[in-house]
Amino acid sequence: MPSVRVAGVGLTPFGEHPDRTTRDLFAEAGIEAMSDAEVRADAVDAVYFGNFVGELADGQGHHGPLVAESLGVSAPATRFESACASSGVAVRHAVRAVECGDADVVVVGGAERMTHVGTDEATAMLATAADAIHEVSAGVTFPGAYALMADAYFETYGGSRRDLAHVAVKNHGHALENEYAQFQFEVSVDDVLEAPTVASPLGLLDACPVTDGASALVLVSDEYARDADVEAAVEVTGSGQASDTLALQDRETLSRTPATERAAAEAYRDAGIEAADIDLVEVHDCFTCAEVFALEALGLYDPGEAITAAREGETWRDGQLPVNCSGGLKAKGHPVGATGASQVVEMTRLLRGDHPNSDYVSEASTGVTHSAGGTVASTTVHVLEVAR
Amino acid sequence: MPSVRVAGVGLTPFGEHPDRTTRDLFAEAGIEAMSDAEVRADAVDAVYFGNFVGELADGQGHHGPLVAESLGVSAPATRFESACASSGVAVRHAVRAVECGDADVVVVGGAERMTHVGTDEATAMLATAADAIHEVSAGVTFPGAYALMADAYFETYGGSRRDLAHVAVKNHGHALENEYAQFQFEVSVDDVLEAPTVASPLGLLDACPVTDGASALVLVSDEYARDADVEAAVEVTGSGQASDTLALQDRETLSRTPATERAAAEAYRDAGIEAADIDLVEVHDCFTCAEVFALEALGLYDPGEAITAAREGETWRDGQLPVNCSGGLKAKGHPVGATGASQVVEMTRLLRGDHPNSDYVSEASTGVTHSAGGTVASTTVHVLEVAR
Repeated sequence: MPSVRVAGVGLTPFGEHPDRTTRDLFAEAGIEAMSDAEVRADAVDAVYFGNFVGELADGQGHHGPLVAESLGVSAPATRFESACASSGVAVRHAVRAVECGDADVVVVGGAERMTHVGTDEATAMLATAADAIHEVSAGVTFPGAYALMADAYFETYGGSRRDLAHVAVKNHGHALENEYAQFQFEVSVDDVLEAPTVASPLGLLDACPVTDGASALVLVSDEYARDADVEAAVEVTGSGQASDTLALQDRETLSRTPATERAAAEAYRDAGIEAADIDLVEVHDCFTCAEVFALEALGLYDPGEAITAAREGETWRDGQLPVNCSGGLKAKGHPVGATGASQVVEMTRLLRGDHPNSDYVSEASTGVTHSAGGTVASTTVHVLEVAR
Repeated sequence: MPSVRVAGVGLTPFGEHPDRTTRDLFAEAGIEAMSDAEVRADAVDAVYFGNFVGELADGQGHHGPLVAESLGVSAPATRFESACASSGVAVRHAVRAVECGDADVVVVGGAERMTHVGTDEATAMLATAADAIHEVSAGVTFPGAYALMADAYFETYGGSRRDLAHVAVKNHGHALENEYAQFQFEVSVDDVLEAPTVASPLGLLDACPVTDGASALVLVSDEYARDADVEAAVEVTGSGQASDTLALQDRETLSRTPATERAAAEAYRDAGIEAADIDLVEVHDCFTCAEVFALEALGLYDPGEAITAAREGETWRDGQLPVNCSGGLKAKGHPVGATGASQVVEMTRLLRGDHPNSDYVSEASTGVTHSAGGTVASTTVHVLEVAR
């Protein structure tokens, strides 16, 4: 079975791009990735594209062929929609396509554009990732859903808003030198605690922003990398995907995210690693509490133990387990369809040494990325390793 | 490499289901397919689901986990959106997942619900499959786009509205005994020619209807079929996918659909067949002219030759090459996200002998299905054969 290499990566700056289109944003990231990989358009076997609400925000569905065209690529193109995990799922299927021998060169990524619709409308669009019948009709939006989960966690394991505030402080700190980040400024624990409440116990600075942006990777088989003499130092050695009920009401508990546990188990088995082997992670921190849920579900902390990790400095870039060195969704931003693949972009740069935070993690050789859709109803986990 | 068998199929009646939800429709089709396959929910490794405009028509995105849950399945679930080829593309990826050894049992299908929004709104939703900037902003909707293609065809190769009318007459004839068809009534050539013009040269009876409905298949590896003693007489031996520019303005010609040619070449190579080996086809006839384009792009007729096929009786169920024995999109209906997989359902039933039109095609052993999105900007082709 061919192994899968990351031959190139690309990002747009994350932030507000009200005058651009989704296809245009993806073209920028995709062409950057192809240039980084030194791969020409006619070498691309397939395009895998993640996008969440193009129909609602842009009046544009059928984005697969459109973004392929924007790269000058005429290969088959597929659009994946799994809410906030859209391009995480696209990466998962792209990895399998290369492993399967079905493609030697895949451009995979995602894009989203939402800032132009305003925050209220964006919140409503994001809510289409929740259960329209059992949740949204009852008034649930994502800040409310994650607030319910945070409360359930506090009730089960303890912890405080102050603990969560340290997650925000850390991720803003990590984003300071990331030129692609939407928020390149620091926040203090007091800033977070004093920010307006969005849905108790979560405040405005516990939440990631609404963002426009795009991300792209060129994945190639090891054979292709060798034959085409492409530098591709990072290997995707494991991939896992899992689902859960869309509605929180159908879960056994709100304080755990079992879909992530299942996706991680598959990805670790695939890569032949254990949680203890992981040096570095990028997780889906749409809210501060989501980082805590992810770290526990990935097996990096026991249940109830991750809540103090940021406060204790363990998950800072100079700590024992650096988490979200990119700045995370929290500070780097969350252009929904782009997010899952952007985590793999950031991890690749961290591992190959050309990320602004690479110096902090120069010993790292095994990284994990975690993407989540809805209240972790869709999730993917990928293991990246420096190729030996 | 495992070969891929169709172990079970399911459909809802195609038509108007204004009081049902997309998840509910898919549950009906999916549970029917799982029952047909005698596969239990816990044996399912993945769910692949095609849906086009759930966000717009139902206020519901993130349909993958939702429809898996509706089947009682907790396996990873992925939603595919490729406009009218959404579940055609889902089938393509499901086939590869089984071939890859990534899954032994996949439930794949699709669903759509659009009749409740009314025809004008449905036309606008369907138009999100066209290029919002270069086509829709200029007033193009799909009847108009296909009318341009029909005109280009007439200009290049000749043919008439009367020739196209025979396609509608045939497909209505084929649907008469199909209990899942939206239109179980005959139309005459005069009915078609005298119907109101939608976009010249196409009239109302040249167009498929707006439809609600769902389709599902259980695909299994041959090993699984043997070990679980599952009856699965039909094998998917070939799969092809291709893309083209979204906007017609960027094509070299409007009278050909080269994406279908490329997808067919891949599928035939995969299956080790040539066009001459094909006994039976189900093609994407969203408009009567689309059937003509498909037959030529599939290599079943030379350019300019398929226009008279229905009129000459060649593509009737008792002709030399039966086309759309299901009734096609034209008469069976077109619940967008369900259509691509429903063609594979119909072909499976035709080949295994339990379709109302099976008696007409009892000698057939090789069938091809063709799914198209937009003006054939996305397309998949599958080869099905009676397993030896």
